[in-house]
Amino acid sequence: MPNKNLKNFASDNAAPVHPALMEALVAENNGPAMGYGNDPTTMDMERRLQDLFGCDLKAFPVATGTAANVLSLAVLTPPYGTIYCHKSSHIEGDECGAPEFYTGGAKLTLLDGDDGKLDPVILDQALSLTDPTNVHHVPPTAISMTQVTEAGTVYSPDEVRAIGDIAQKYQLGLHMDGARFANAVASLGCAPADITWKGGVDILSFGATKNGAMAVEAVVFFNQEKAKEFEFRRKRGAHLFSKSRYLSAQLKRYVENGLWLEMAETANKMACRLAEGISKLPDDKARLHFPVKANMLFATLTETAIERLEQAGFLFYVMGPRHKAEVRLVTSWNTAVTEVDEMLEILGSNN
Amino acid sequence: MPNKNLKNFASDNAAPVHPALMEALVAENNGPAMGYGNDPTTMDMERRLQDLFGCDLKAFPVATGTAANVLSLAVLTPPYGTIYCHKSSHIEGDECGAPEFYTGGAKLTLLDGDDGKLDPVILDQALSLTDPTNVHHVPPTAISMTQVTEAGTVYSPDEVRAIGDIAQKYQLGLHMDGARFANAVASLGCAPADITWKGGVDILSFGATKNGAMAVEAVVFFNQEKAKEFEFRRKRGAHLFSKSRYLSAQLKRYVENGLWLEMAETANKMACRLAEGISKLPDDKARLHFPVKANMLFATLTETAIERLEQAGFLFYVMGPRHKAEVRLVTSWNTAVTEVDEMLEILGSNN
Amino acid sequence: MPNKNLKNFASDNAAPVHPALMEALVAENNGPAMGYGNDPTTMDMERRLQDLFGCDLKAFPVATGTAANVLSLAVLTPPYGTIYCHKSSHIEGDECGAPEFYTGGAKLTLLDGDDGKLDPVILDQALSLTDPTNVHHVPPTAISMTQVTEAGTVYSPDEVRAIGDIAQKYQLGLHMDGARFANAVASLGCAPADITWKGGVDILSFGATKNGAMAVEAVVFFNQEKAKEFEFRRKRGAHLFSKSRYLSAQLKRYVENGLWLEMAETANKMACRLAEGISKLPDDKARLHFPVKANMLFATLTETAIERLEQAGFLFYVMGPRHKAEVRLVTSWNTAVTEVDEMLEILGSNN
Amino acid sequence: MPNKNLKNFASDNAAPVHPALMEALVAENNGPAMGYGNDPTTMDMERRLQDLFGCDLKAFPVATGTAANVLSLAVLTPPYGTIYCHKSSHIEGDECGAPEFYTGGAKLTLLDGDDGKLDPVILDQALSLTDPTNVHHVPPTAISMTQVTEAGTVYSPDEVRAIGDIAQKYQLGLHMDGARFANAVASLGCAPADITWKGGVDILSFGATKNGAMAVEAVVFFNQEKAKEFEFRRKRGAHLFSKSRYLSAQLKRYVENGLWLEMAETANKMACRLAEGISKLPDDKARLHFPVKANMLFATLTETAIERLEQAGFLFYVMGPRHKAEVRLVTSWNTAVTEVDEMLEILGSNN
Repeated sequence: MPNKNLKNFASDNAAPVHPALMEALVAENNGPAMGYGNDPTTMDMERRLQDLFGCDLKAFPVATGTAANVLSLAVLTPPYGTIYCHKSSHIEGDECGAPEFYTGGAKLTLLDGDDGKLDPVILDQALSLTDPTNVHHVPPTAISMTQVTEAGTVYSPDEVRAIGDIAQKYQLGLHMDGARFANAVASLGCAPADITWKGGVDILSFGATKNGAMAVEAVVFFNQEKAKEFEFRRKRGAHLFSKSRYLSAQLKRYVENGLWLEMAETANKMACRLAEGISKLPDDKARLHFPVKANMLFATLTETAIERLEQAGFLFYVMGPRHKAEVRLVTSWNTAVTEVDEMLEILGSNN
Repeated sequence: MPNKNLKNFASDNAAPVHPALMEALVAENNGPAMGYGNDPTTMDMERRLQDLFGCDLKAFPVATGTAANVLSLAVLTPPYGTIYCHKSSHIEGDECGAPEFYTGGAKLTLLDGDDGKLDPVILDQALSLTDPTNVHHVPPTAISMTQVTEAGTVYSPDEVRAIGDIAQKYQLGLHMDGARFANAVASLGCAPADITWKGGVDILSFGATKNGAMAVEAVVFFNQEKAKEFEFRRKRGAHLFSKSRYLSAQLKRYVENGLWLEMAETANKMACRLAEGISKLPDDKARLHFPVKANMLFATLTETAIERLEQAGFLFYVMGPRHKAEVRLVTSWNTAVTEVDEMLEILGSNN
Repeated sequence: MPNKNLKNFASDNAAPVHPALMEALVAENNGPAMGYGNDPTTMDMERRLQDLFGCDLKAFPVATGTAANVLSLAVLTPPYGTIYCHKSSHIEGDECGAPEFYTGGAKLTLLDGDDGKLDPVILDQALSLTDPTNVHHVPPTAISMTQVTEAGTVYSPDEVRAIGDIAQKYQLGLHMDGARFANAVASLGCAPADITWKGGVDILSFGATKNGAMAVEAVVFFNQEKAKEFEFRRKRGAHLFSKSRYLSAQLKRYVENGLWLEMAETANKMACRLAEGISKLPDDKARLHFPVKANMLFATLTETAIERLEQAGFLFYVMGPRHKAEVRLVTSWNTAVTEVDEMLEILGSNN
Repeated sequence: MPNKNLKNFASDNAAPVHPALMEALVAENNGPAMGYGNDPTTMDMERRLQDLFGCDLKAFPVATGTAANVLSLAVLTPPYGTIYCHKSSHIEGDECGAPEFYTGGAKLTLLDGDDGKLDPVILDQALSLTDPTNVHHVPPTAISMTQVTEAGTVYSPDEVRAIGDIAQKYQLGLHMDGARFANAVASLGCAPADITWKGGVDILSFGATKNGAMAVEAVVFFNQEKAKEFEFRRKRGAHLFSKSRYLSAQLKRYVENGLWLEMAETANKMACRLAEGISKLPDDKARLHFPVKANMLFATLTETAIERLEQAGFLFYVMGPRHKAEVRLVTSWNTAVTEVDEMLEILGSNN
């Protein structure tokens, strides 16, 4: 049983499941249904995503964000290609080589870029130096961008389009890792279409697990050309669930009545409140690293503050060597104002 | 929403989740917990499996039976080896090449054997003809057996031991695909240990999804040597869940108070009742292919009978060309006596 | 230094290099040339193969037959597919899983067929039972046939066309393992085109190593669609030679003035002479297993005969358990009539 | 036929084969021999390498440098690991992802370091920040260093040992890409042992192709633990030659009577002469990028100089955009003094 006294700023995936999603699971559990996605709930889920994105699309549920990402990449690149991405990407640093495994050994080409974002100038220049016919080097075959980025920042619709234009210029597939896609949409106040297919995204990992679901992400194909291949790769990757309907039931409820945005807005608002509080503190007490746009903050604290927070039951990650006192703080759909304010009080006290 | 009027003999994975397991999920959903298995529920789940099998072991939850199988095989064989298995194995025929993918291209060597079982004489002879130092041929590196088999039959403890002895003789890892392990234990009335580690099994895919869970299997390492490698491969395969505790919560409740055997016994009993009924019918109306030991029947029916069953709302698979009228009938934890009897009535009527 | 007294019936690849090919290597060794195939000899070699086959084609030299086969297969099948082939195929039994490695884990589906040949009826039936849209099973994606077969038999032009028609019917790529292609052409007396592109072959492994070269095969693309992908895979497989011109120089000389057929004819003639001699012996002394069409014989001898042959310095392979006395005898471009006659004399003597 | 008027500074692999090695091939071509390395020449070759390195070892011939490298790496790292190497490494930039392919998808971790060399301080620090038990990140599993480096510099015995000590400290396998190993030994004047096993190298790619051979490298196992696995992987990679003896014959002659060092010394001497000449020129005419220690120079020239050199029949690579006028110049075993002096004359003339 989880410890209810812990105050979770460790990860949005350490938060519990939203009660409405749990109810959707209970409601789904009502008689038999054919397996492997051949069930009415899965078909209904796809229709709802078509409505949400305002276009024709194919949507396939999988249970982990890594699965969504790497199965997407596997259909966008041959094994002898390379995927251009930001050096801080989750696919590079936090998936234990899953992209290499699923693509059959493609490479990732890591690029610099401020605030965790791919920089169109840097990207274009890097690509302009490649010769995709030279067999000695892996040719560029795809681009992967992360929305919300690993720095907690957000690409605007124009910024997405700038990357999409480059993908088109070099005829590369464009993948978006949207593990925190809801937080991005909530932050931008735009339509989901504005930062996906309208910007040139071919495949989106549409995350839900970090934003209140139990375990589900949709792989959304705006470009449906590779959708059938995806189905073979999903099965072969052992990610086709016999009882797929319980994945789909979560997704269906997730996008119903704006629940997904409601949850993301709460998380974003709590992060914003925390960021505002921190920015009022003197720099030697707490200093933010990036503009806070969604539900994730990176900050330098004092070692004493870190200890006090831990003693008070706050969960969070200390990045790198402890004496550097750099932390990541993530808010969730269920983060309470009182938790944020208690944290700010500790940070503001005389350490 | 599922259609409640359908009578499911299609698959045990088309059945809903047992209410007690759904309740366990709801109960787990109570506050935050650290992700990726670093939670109290997962640790508790492992302890309960240690009790159940009466030995030290490592247990890792994954969400699909294919994931359990192929991650197990990946740690038992190098890419240049081959896995000996029955020609009807799920890993050969129903996983779209997932074993080849996860092992990095190892082969499966397919063997004959009555009633879906590996035959120790055939297995020993096949292995005796190999030269594991000859680099032109893939050397034998593992054996995989299925309990309950794909023919619905069950290996006795002695039969498991016979395969285990051969594994030991040739120094091969032994994997058991236990997607329907509960049905086997319920059928045999033995201890789980008797058909696993006492018989030489190194790694067990301990299935729960087909027997009333939503989506969870435990990969159980009796031989813990490769457990750490497994953890890397699970992550890399995108099968490490951030919210692992919801997998573990199912497993924990599954083995509590004998729920898992209770569900399997019901399924087995319904299959037995169906088999008895069929065996009383004249052969030209219905004929069983294998001894029915668990919850799966293979039978030849008449085309007319198949049509009538379908009209009456029965779900089931017709194998191969329809005019051959061969069907697979699978019972589940929630199969009702009335469903069985209605089916028998249709089969017995003058078609 | 090799032992000159050994009489080689072990393999055509145990024979030395034809002097004319060695001279071609020496002649090539005359100043610098750009690497990796960007040299005049390689371009010239490709033109000569275009002439030989009477069509436009791309030809890439590699150094081993396995490399030629598995690089061909890698461009014909995605990793989630399966390659239909005869159960005795070299790609199945003698390449240590190289096809699985190079294709990223595709399967081989093994078929029966008399005399080592794919049987169009069996092949068509097997394919007709598949459903290439069903994600649970690997879909058929390619066919591979061997010419000369592993039984030493040869597909006629009509027999090749029959397989090619099936490949077309099911939209599968067709590969021909022509490790002994020269022996087949010499045996049939047909044009190379008749048993390749005119019969529907997409890619040919055009062997030379077993027929007098030092180490070279050409991968010949009649269907050039995948040729560029091949170049990446060849490099990535570490089979692109910096000094490619020494591979090409062999190939170029090989097909010059009919040398390749001259060598193959000698080998075939020696096998024929041996087969005729054996067929005149009583069955309990020596019995052939297959019609002898090229340069390879399979026979059952007596244990005593095997010992006498070995004592006399004959090299050959005993297949399976020795007491069964089954042997493979392979003739080469340099097999001498005296060697054949000495062998026949030993076989005919009173053992 | 190659163009004899070209003056090759493009690559040492654009040079022809040393006549003594060609003679060794002709001499080997004398009767049959069993295939796949079961021949006396291969055994003899191994013994000679044991003598050369002064230790017990296993040596396996392969035909390309990439094959030597990636087969070595494949036995040193599991697919979920990462190989630490210099960012300019051949395995990273010039093998089209072959390391990823052969290792089953392991990563390369790229490090900075002056003059193309791994810097022990940077390497140690990078490794100290890893947690090899954390399944979210690929654990370090091997180090690969290049001798001669891609910058044309050479690790001293102490520098090799410093890397070897770190490999030992973190229990990582150590591979050396010795495509130009002879040039390094010739440059250092040390024993081959001093920069290999005495420094902690487990596996060496012992190159010969770039230094006068036709196509052969030896993979040398000082640590023989993984040698058997290597043999399976070599076959599976399609790099086991049936007529292996022609590879071994080259290697055997290569190390006989110091031929290998004699060739490397010539190449080094020519590079030295060229470097001295260039260093006397004013910086705006020609400027060297790295200390010249072996047979490879990197320099900035003028655009006019580049044109004149090309008009005079010099072959060489212009790196990156042409107007930057950066070139790579490589000398070979057969580079003539007159060629060097002609080049210097052109560079020194008033452009």
